[in-house]
Formats: sequence, C-alpha cells, structure tokens
Amino acid sequence: MIDVDLNIHTDLVRGILTGFIRSELNRMGFTKAVINLSGGIDSALSCYLAAEALGPQNVLAIRLPYRTSSQDSLDDAQKVIDALGVQSLTYEITGMVEPLFQQFPEMSNTRKGNSMARARMIVLYDQSEAFHGLAIGTGNKTEILLGYTTLYGDSACAINPIGDLYKTQVRQFSRDLGLPDSILAKAPSADLWLGQTDEGELGFTYAEVDRLLYLMVDQRYTPQEAVEAGFAEPFVNAVVERIRRNQFKRMLPPIAKLSNRTIGYDFLYLRDWGT
Amino acid sequence: MIDVDLNIHTDLVRGILTGFIRSELNRMGFTKAVINLSGGIDSALSCYLAAEALGPQNVLAIRLPYRTSSQDSLDDAQKVIDALGVQSLTYEITGMVEPLFQQFPEMSNTRKGNSMARARMIVLYDQSEAFHGLAIGTGNKTEILLGYTTLYGDSACAINPIGDLYKTQVRQFSRDLGLPDSILAKAPSADLWLGQTDEGELGFTYAEVDRLLYLMVDQRYTPQEAVEAGFAEPFVNAVVERIRRNQFKRMLPPIAKLSNRTIGYDFLYLRDWGT
Repeated sequence: MIDVDLNIHTDLVRGILTGFIRSELNRMGFTKAVINLSGGIDSALSCYLAAEALGPQNVLAIRLPYRTSSQDSLDDAQKVIDALGVQSLTYEITGMVEPLFQQFPEMSNTRKGNSMARARMIVLYDQSEAFHGLAIGTGNKTEILLGYTTLYGDSACAINPIGDLYKTQVRQFSRDLGLPDSILAKAPSADLWLGQTDEGELGFTYAEVDRLLYLMVDQRYTPQEAVEAGFAEPFVNAVVERIRRNQFKRMLPPIAKLSNRTIGYDFLYLRDWGT
Repeated sequence: MIDVDLNIHTDLVRGILTGFIRSELNRMGFTKAVINLSGGIDSALSCYLAAEALGPQNVLAIRLPYRTSSQDSLDDAQKVIDALGVQSLTYEITGMVEPLFQQFPEMSNTRKGNSMARARMIVLYDQSEAFHGLAIGTGNKTEILLGYTTLYGDSACAINPIGDLYKTQVRQFSRDLGLPDSILAKAPSADLWLGQTDEGELGFTYAEVDRLLYLMVDQRYTPQEAVEAGFAEPFVNAVVERIRRNQFKRMLPPIAKLSNRTIGYDFLYLRDWGT
C-alpha cells in the first residue's frame, strides 16, 4: 500500500486561515461572524479560527438542538463557547420542523435530517442579519467531496475556512490547537438520530477515504491508478460514484443560456465596471 | 434616450428552454420536476415550460402560502395548475416560521420574509426527494442581477430555465404563451405583506431598469456610457451598487485555498476521471 502523508504545518495553516477570515470579511464590509456550533469537531475548529481572527466578542456561536439531539453535543458546544469567550445563543429548532414531519408522517430519516439541517440554516442566516455577522462555514474537504452534506443546509455559508482540509487534517489541526478532549475523542456524527455515526453511514473510515481522496483529487490519480496503489476496486468505485453523484452540490444551478451575457457563464465579475 | 429592443423570438426561446429542461434532467437521471408556484408570473412561466418539456403528470406544483398570503395568489396558482393539468400540493408554512418569529419578536419584515422564503425551500426540496423530481428555478435575470431574492430561499433550485430572461421578457413570453390574464395583469409582488410590490420596494419600474441592465450587462456599457445614453446618474449608480452588493448571491462561498487542488478553484469537473 502506497504511503500517504496528510500532515499539515499547523502554524502556517493557522496563519493562512485566520488571515483568510479577516480579509474576506473586511472585503465584504463586515467585522463579525456567526457560526452554527453543533458540538462536533468541524464547527468547533471554525469557531476557534473565527475567534482568533476577529476577537471573541465579534463571534456569535449558535447552538441549534433538535428534540432528540444528544446532551453531549450541547455540552461540547458549551465547552467551546466557554473556552473562547465568544457570544452565544441557543434555540431549539423542534417547533420549526415538527409541523412538516406531522404533515408527512411517512418521511424518512434522510428527509427529516435534511429538513433539520435547513431549519438550522434559517436561524443561522436570520442571526447573521440580526448580529451583522457573516456565516462561517464548517464543511471539510472530505464531506464536500463525498457530498455528505445537506444542500442549502449545513453547507450554507458566506465563507468557508476549513473546506480545503480533509477530516484527518481537521483532527490533527484541532489537536494541535488544543480543542476540548471530548470533542477530539468522539466519533463524528450528524447527531440526527440516536447512534448515528458518519463512518457507520458511509461504510468506511475517514482515515481510509482521506488517503484515497488525497491521491485521486490532489495527486490526480485515476481510479485505475488508485487500485494499483493498493485500494480495493469496489471501494474506489464507490467513492468515485459518490463524488460524481454529488457534483451538483458543488455547483451553482445551471441557467439556460439565451443572451450573449448570462449570469454564471459570461457575467461573473464586476471588475469591468471599473471600480 | 437610446432605443433598447428587449423583444424575444417566442417560438425560438420556447424550443430552447423546453429542450434545456429535458436535457438537463435527463443528464442528471431525472424525468420529473417540482416547482414552488407562488401565483406570480415567473413561477407560472417556469411551470408552463416544465409541463411542456416533461408532460404535466411529471410536474408537481407546490403552493406554499403563509397566514397572510393573499387569496389571489393561491387562486392564480390554481389557475396554472388547472390549465396545465400538473400535479399539485398545498401546504401552509405558517407553523414552520411562527416559532422563530415568536422567539425574536423584534424581527423586521425583511428578516421574516427571508425566513419564509427559506421555509418554502425546505418544503420544495423535501418534495423534490419524495416526488423524485428536480427543483425548477423561477428567478429572472432582473431579480438575480439586482439581488432581489433570498439566498438559499426562492433562489434555490436544481436548474433555472428563465434566469437569462429580463422581467420585461418574462412578461412578453408569458403573454405569447397565453398565461392567465390575472397573472399577466397584476403588479409583481413577493406577497410577504399586504400591499407589497416589487416596484414599490425597489424604487423604479422593471421597464426602466431592464433597459439599463440590458445596456450595462449585455451591451457592456460602462456606468458613464449609460448616463451619456440618457439614464439619470443617481439611478445608474443605485443599480450598479445593488448589483455589486449582491454579487455574493451569485457565487459559491469562497473556500480558503491550502492544497494544490481546492474545491471551486482547481477541482471543478470530473471529466479528467475518464467517464
């Protein structure tokens, strides 16, 4: 099996990402940020970076539990809030989604989970307006590539500081930054139902898939070359298929082209208007 | 004042847009579509095009009133459903958003309107999954350029057939296709509160702004050239500023670049994986 080194240079990455948050917000005329703090490692890391970049008083961390969310998730999010001294707000989304669940009682867990992720987006964006802060994204490179995310839900943000870090790298970075042990140690989960874990749902571990993704995406291995490097062919095919099937989540919706300057194709930048 | 001709060739555009809907859905493995039918002209036109492209039995039109939505909106949407013979569903979103409005009683009309548009997106996307149909967009070129739309709300869709048509062109096209008179005649409105009209909120008419947008976007006039062509300078500046300020709604959220292949920059297509 080929050797893959996913280690990052923490100090360097920390400087780049806090600089990114500051300069992107500044460019858009903002000095504050809002974050949906789930209790998981990704949003905790984004919150650490935002607090360092902007100062904790300029960051609003929002906890958005559902009726069945675990108390551990809430407690872990609170540890981040306490450690950083950021502002915080807690709002239970149960009342927003139950009417829909009752209207469609046959709804699958997937449909429920997507609606819950989108209800959280509504509150995040409403607070973005109330707090005058931009929504900081919490999606990592692994989940964006695998499409393990809800479109217009948890993937919704103004800027994403950690979207070019694989989950394995998020873990190393979070360890190096000294995030709370309980957050570092627990199994990644969307916490949509009891006992749900990412790795259980995906059918493989992040450690495995990150090595494959790194070779195929960053090192531009073909699927065949990945197999030759030691990955099982069914695993490679399943991952390629996931990436392909979820491509739409990484794109703007296509607009039918009729004119000679269409939004998303020819009309992309404002720089030709001179200011 | 310079002459601007926004007339479209209806038969040609009709063929292109129904073909776009069919081929985009087919490419993504779908044969059905869902649409949020507001009672306004834009979603009515999208629904006509989808019904023609896919057959009415393959289109689910969804009416999503709020407690204060006008009965006229519901009735106009019903006229479209009846005229086309598409499938339909009605669900009142009041119960989904009231808990949030009660939690934050100081909420402005803008915040309420954004949350309502996003609650409608939740239902649209949930039904997209239940009906196995893709969400057809209903945003026109004028409102997308002006940013007169809710991010992750009414702008959320899988494909948008009418996003390259100015509002003026949507009106001509709808007239030519024989949409119900009451829809053609009424003042455009997001119907978020009583008496709201687009043109009242924007402070100018679609007829005026479409001519300016066409010159600046399609004909690449600079703001200065638009003034020389006869548009009032404060109007030109206000429109330029709106377009600039809302640029973020027409882009994917930026990801901080760390690796040599970042989603949204270097990793855009799957074509280099050979299938």
